[in-house]
Amino acid sequence: MITSREEVTAMIVAHKVQTNIKWSDVAAAIGLSKEWTTAACLGQMTFTKAQAEQVGEIFGLSDEAIAWLQIVPYKGSLPTAVPTDPLIYRWYEVVNVYGSTIKELIHEEFGDGIMSAIDFSMDIQREENPAGDRVNVVLSGKFLPYKTY
Amino acid sequence: MITSREEVTAMIVAHKVQTNIKWSDVAAAIGLSKEWTTAACLGQMTFTKAQAEQVGEIFGLSDEAIAWLQIVPYKGSLPTAVPTDPLIYRWYEVVNVYGSTIKELIHEEFGDGIMSAIDFSMDIQREENPAGDRVNVVLSGKFLPYKTY
Amino acid sequence: MITSREEVTAMIVAHKVQTNIKWSDVAAAIGLSKEWTTAACLGQMTFTKAQAEQVGEIFGLSDEAIAWLQIVPYKGSLPTAVPTDPLIYRWYEVVNVYGSTIKELIHEEFGDGIMSAIDFSMDIQREENPAGDRVNVVLSGKFLPYKTY
Amino acid sequence: MITSREEVTAMIVAHKVQTNIKWSDVAAAIGLSKEWTTAACLGQMTFTKAQAEQVGEIFGLSDEAIAWLQIVPYKGSLPTAVPTDPLIYRWYEVVNVYGSTIKELIHEEFGDGIMSAIDFSMDIQREENPAGDRVNVVLSGKFLPYKTY
Amino acid sequence: MITSREEVTAMIVAHKVQTNIKWSDVAAAIGLSKEWTTAACLGQMTFTKAQAEQVGEIFGLSDEAIAWLQIVPYKGSLPTAVPTDPLIYRWYEVVNVYGSTIKELIHEEFGDGIMSAIDFSMDIQREENPAGDRVNVVLSGKFLPYKTY
Amino acid sequence: MITSREEVTAMIVAHKVQTNIKWSDVAAAIGLSKEWTTAACLGQMTFTKAQAEQVGEIFGLSDEAIAWLQIVPYKGSLPTAVPTDPLIYRWYEVVNVYGSTIKELIHEEFGDGIMSAIDFSMDIQREENPAGDRVNVVLSGKFLPYKTY
Amino acid sequence: MITSREEVTAMIVAHKVQTNIKWSDVAAAIGLSKEWTTAACLGQMTFTKAQAEQVGEIFGLSDEAIAWLQIVPYKGSLPTAVPTDPLIYRWYEVVNVYGSTIKELIHEEFGDGIMSAIDFSMDIQREENPAGDRVNVVLSGKFLPYKTY
Amino acid sequence: MITSREEVTAMIVAHKVQTNIKWSDVAAAIGLSKEWTTAACLGQMTFTKAQAEQVGEIFGLSDEAIAWLQIVPYKGSLPTAVPTDPLIYRWYEVVNVYGSTIKELIHEEFGDGIMSAIDFSMDIQREENPAGDRVNVVLSGKFLPYKTY
Amino acid sequence: MITSREEVTAMIVAHKVQTNIKWSDVAAAIGLSKEWTTAACLGQMTFTKAQAEQVGEIFGLSDEAIAWLQIVPYKGSLPTAVPTDPLIYRWYEVVNVYGSTIKELIHEEFGDGIMSAIDFSMDIQREENPAGDRVNVVLSGKFLPYKTY
Amino acid sequence: MITSREEVTAMIVAHKVQTNIKWSDVAAAIGLSKEWTTAACLGQMTFTKAQAEQVGEIFGLSDEAIAWLQIVPYKGSLPTAVPTDPLIYRWYEVVNVYGSTIKELIHEEFGDGIMSAIDFSMDIQREENPAGDRVNVVLSGKFLPYKTY
Repeated sequence: MITSREEVTAMIVAHKVQTNIKWSDVAAAIGLSKEWTTAACLGQMTFTKAQAEQVGEIFGLSDEAIAWLQIVPYKGSLPTAVPTDPLIYRWYEVVNVYGSTIKELIHEEFGDGIMSAIDFSMDIQREENPAGDRVNVVLSGKFLPYKTY
Repeated sequence: MITSREEVTAMIVAHKVQTNIKWSDVAAAIGLSKEWTTAACLGQMTFTKAQAEQVGEIFGLSDEAIAWLQIVPYKGSLPTAVPTDPLIYRWYEVVNVYGSTIKELIHEEFGDGIMSAIDFSMDIQREENPAGDRVNVVLSGKFLPYKTY
Repeated sequence: MITSREEVTAMIVAHKVQTNIKWSDVAAAIGLSKEWTTAACLGQMTFTKAQAEQVGEIFGLSDEAIAWLQIVPYKGSLPTAVPTDPLIYRWYEVVNVYGSTIKELIHEEFGDGIMSAIDFSMDIQREENPAGDRVNVVLSGKFLPYKTY
Repeated sequence: MITSREEVTAMIVAHKVQTNIKWSDVAAAIGLSKEWTTAACLGQMTFTKAQAEQVGEIFGLSDEAIAWLQIVPYKGSLPTAVPTDPLIYRWYEVVNVYGSTIKELIHEEFGDGIMSAIDFSMDIQREENPAGDRVNVVLSGKFLPYKTY
Repeated sequence: MITSREEVTAMIVAHKVQTNIKWSDVAAAIGLSKEWTTAACLGQMTFTKAQAEQVGEIFGLSDEAIAWLQIVPYKGSLPTAVPTDPLIYRWYEVVNVYGSTIKELIHEEFGDGIMSAIDFSMDIQREENPAGDRVNVVLSGKFLPYKTY
Repeated sequence: MITSREEVTAMIVAHKVQTNIKWSDVAAAIGLSKEWTTAACLGQMTFTKAQAEQVGEIFGLSDEAIAWLQIVPYKGSLPTAVPTDPLIYRWYEVVNVYGSTIKELIHEEFGDGIMSAIDFSMDIQREENPAGDRVNVVLSGKFLPYKTY
Repeated sequence: MITSREEVTAMIVAHKVQTNIKWSDVAAAIGLSKEWTTAACLGQMTFTKAQAEQVGEIFGLSDEAIAWLQIVPYKGSLPTAVPTDPLIYRWYEVVNVYGSTIKELIHEEFGDGIMSAIDFSMDIQREENPAGDRVNVVLSGKFLPYKTY
Repeated sequence: MITSREEVTAMIVAHKVQTNIKWSDVAAAIGLSKEWTTAACLGQMTFTKAQAEQVGEIFGLSDEAIAWLQIVPYKGSLPTAVPTDPLIYRWYEVVNVYGSTIKELIHEEFGDGIMSAIDFSMDIQREENPAGDRVNVVLSGKFLPYKTY
Repeated sequence: MITSREEVTAMIVAHKVQTNIKWSDVAAAIGLSKEWTTAACLGQMTFTKAQAEQVGEIFGLSDEAIAWLQIVPYKGSLPTAVPTDPLIYRWYEVVNVYGSTIKELIHEEFGDGIMSAIDFSMDIQREENPAGDRVNVVLSGKFLPYKTY
Repeated sequence: MITSREEVTAMIVAHKVQTNIKWSDVAAAIGLSKEWTTAACLGQMTFTKAQAEQVGEIFGLSDEAIAWLQIVPYKGSLPTAVPTDPLIYRWYEVVNVYGSTIKELIHEEFGDGIMSAIDFSMDIQREENPAGDRVNVVLSGKFLPYKTY
């Protein structure tokens, strides 16, 4: 009996380690971005029935596991509040060092409100650069204003 | 006697509240991006002597305060490990929900290493959109590979 | 020199303690709900110039303080992550005990997404009841769906 | 041997994922609100013998599991003090941002005391709205005054 | 300008240290129990106007301070989540060691619900005992049952 | 192989759930108070050989488990420093809200020292009351004075 | 106005830094051990009137400060739960590494109970040793058994 | 396959519970103090091959387990930073209440430096006393001075 | 099915305990430093296919495990934010006590920026010394300057 | 009145910001390494009388402040357990990622024990390098073995 989405994520990851399939190939197979697809395979998003079945085929999942892929998961992909992994920590550091800057500049442009993390997309690209290649990431979120009532 | 950079940041912010000068105008005055300039005014970056003097003039700072602007600060702009402000929290949430995805995709493209938060720049723009304007942010960091030795 | 919104909040609260003005009267004076008005006076929302001036008059604030009321504040009104005050703790307890229930039922009705805390309003009312009066609170937030991309 | 209510909750959830039965149908079957029923199925409330047997039939539980449903559970449905799941976090954010407001307004109306989280009910409804449907939630709790003695 | 109840509590405590008045005498003066009176003087309860004026006279408080005594305070009297003071820690230890026992026995007698900490009183007495005097404390709280709805 | 007292506690609790035996009946069987007996069955106290054997018979424990009941356990019955269960939280709240009061009144009566949590007993009773039954708890602990040396 | 014992401790420490008086001389002056006397001067113990006056004379304290020395303090002398100072950390390390050993050996000798930290004394001595002098500390605490009831 | 020292510790403890062998007898068998021996059996110290084999014989350990006893363990014997067990907490309380005192007196006698927790021994003894037996503990650690360079 | 790198690390460590192979011999076998090799075997670095196969042979790993060695791991080798093991704590202590010093001196020499922990190497050596051998560690990290943009 | 070493550290730092004196010049003036001298000026080490007077002259300190420099300070130079400043965090990251490696290799070479952080020195140097200059740091600490007793 599978009792959590985490178990299905572990099956997907274990299968991927053995087969070396790329996330971008999985994404191509289901016709979505590599960012959303990876997040969903890692247990952060909800698949439709059709998507879940494709994913199930790719990773050799049982019907029971495929059912779990269609359930809204409890989100949050990190084991500690401050991440210990250096790659992920650098992102936390950006939030820590630039957090007040981001807040000031968005408010200067838009007024009081937030940048949505739900109506949101992300695109990660390699920029070739003779001084060392760069990771370029575009985050795009709808601005949601606070309203008076 | 000024004994910390935080005191200078408070002076800058207090002056800005009363005069309503925009960060982008400050940035234009010293000829740098609004992102770097705001971070520096909020106590996260180090000004050169010339920049510090310009900033000092804009915000009416004393020589003592201007000296502090040229000292490398103790960085970190948030009062708690998990931010309480909704705008900044959404960024923390992105790290939390998408952290493992970001890690997977950067490693898939570049191998083991990190995206630098030091050799790094950020650009925040408004994208007009009939369904509601969007905040678009481009993060660009050099990829730094782990090496064997 | 006023260097933070917290100082203005302290002035408002101290003035209110001495004059015993009611939040609902402040709200009536500026023509908004008592919930939004109180949150704004307690440093969680941003006033327009006109509202700030009215509030300034009610609480006897200086021009410097009135300027601060128009700046987007760093939000978060509680001193600890788990609140110690019994009234506020009961709300935290509701989130803790019913959190998974709320999640299940909203997803059952709407699919994957969240109830916005930004496009959001709150209404607090007394319900007279012979078995003891009740506090009735209506929370209304726009549903924001996660989308694939 | 079943040694905790959490194991029974896991069985219920796993069964629900495979059968796709709705919480509102379970609630209808036992004649109670969907909110209370879901909370109880998720291990936060105590069933009577009759209710436990109905629930056991719906979810295919053993007698041993049905016995556990009638025991008062150790409550608390979230894995961390600050929730990481975005939907549940928004509720925590409301407590954080509006906590002092809620406190002020309840005290203004009722004096010193609390809104009970025990003599309490919750009702979650969809409000159709051309600008995007809304989640409307009514919380109703008895006011309990502090008394002198 | 007094901006918090904590300042008034500090005035009361400082005055008491110099005059050595006993809490039980303060309680007698305002005609309430020593337990409630002490809690109120330490900033945990709300005085009526008449009580506040009596307390103000006893501790030599200004009108501004007396106004604060009539405002519902933000409760919580300990500086850390786990208390460091040995006397108070022993109470925390009782909750820690006997917590599950208290829960079991109250549920065995009353079913699901809680012992109120609001409709609550406490009485602290010395019991003379040749083997060493004992502190006897009676806690009395109304049982509040969880109800189905 | 049983490697911790927690495993034995789980056996006892699981057996109790199935048989519905009451703690007070267990207490009567071994001739001690229901409070001490429950605490001991929940892994907080140490049984003598004779008591352990009686308890073993009641709950159908193996000799290996009975041996564990006679070993001094690592005490502490709560999974988090701040309890999430509403019933137990109310007790933590009492320590938090009344902690400074308890300290003041015990010192006023006894001088510097503590109320023992070791030479300690607890008695939990129902008080019938037309306004709603009450939980009455008597805590009795020896006063232990700090001495100079 | 002095509003806390911490202020008096700060006065004592500041005076000691300037005069270089030794704790052992203070102890000799009031006729008690250097361990108790130091703890009391650092705000952890309660002086009698006579002792407080002697201490006041030694450290040049005002009558107001001397009154505070006779009040039972809120104990706990460290700024963080895990101490950062290397000397004090080594003691925390001993509790961490040897904690389970101490527990086992005291229970092996005495049965269930604790070593009192109230009916307790400490003696710190230098042991001359050619391989490097040693700090020898004797801790002596009354054994307090748990009793059944 | 045994993958951690904790598993070996669990085997030792489980065997001891069933056989009731005393730590002092184990210590006598391997010719070392009861304090070091207990710490080592509880996974805090490293045995030599000869000692490990003796211990293995006493507790009926496999060769695989005996190999683990000879590996330097990851030390730390407590499950939480602030211990919940009353006996061990009393030691933590001593560090908390007397920490600043210990620091002052060691520095007064020895200057800047620490008392080693490595070149360290401990001796736990019962002192018979008509007022109640006492636990006497001698801690002896080499003083290590900070040096300038 | 192996679902995490931690499981492979546990296999390596368990095998090493039984065979007593030295890390320096493993390093020699794959032609890299003992520091990098140990970190990689303990799950902090990524092996190439060739290295993974050599390591697999040394530690008797299955093909499934060898596949995991080539996947970038989630880094972080300590169970708690503040380490409890005395050897590792000393390093944390160095960061705590000397952290501000390291920051000042690197900035004095290089200006604003960091010492990379990615383009980084470490060399641990024994220095024989009549006063007691010393551990000498050389850390070498590229200086990465913050740039303006 | 100066009541803590932190105040003296703030004076030194404020003076340094205005005069731009280098730590290495201060070190040269008192004839010690720049590492020890900086740590001492930042409040982590204890000066002799002669050194304190030299430091006092350099930074224009009062006699009262100079007295504080000769008192052993409460050590620990960071405001949070996990440092937020990127430069210092990288060192924490090294402890986190390489902590288990350092432990393994020191134990492999020396057996059970620690590398002292007291009998310890540090040397920070710039290494010119065409691929980007490097920070080289040599840490040297005496090995202290655990002994049996």
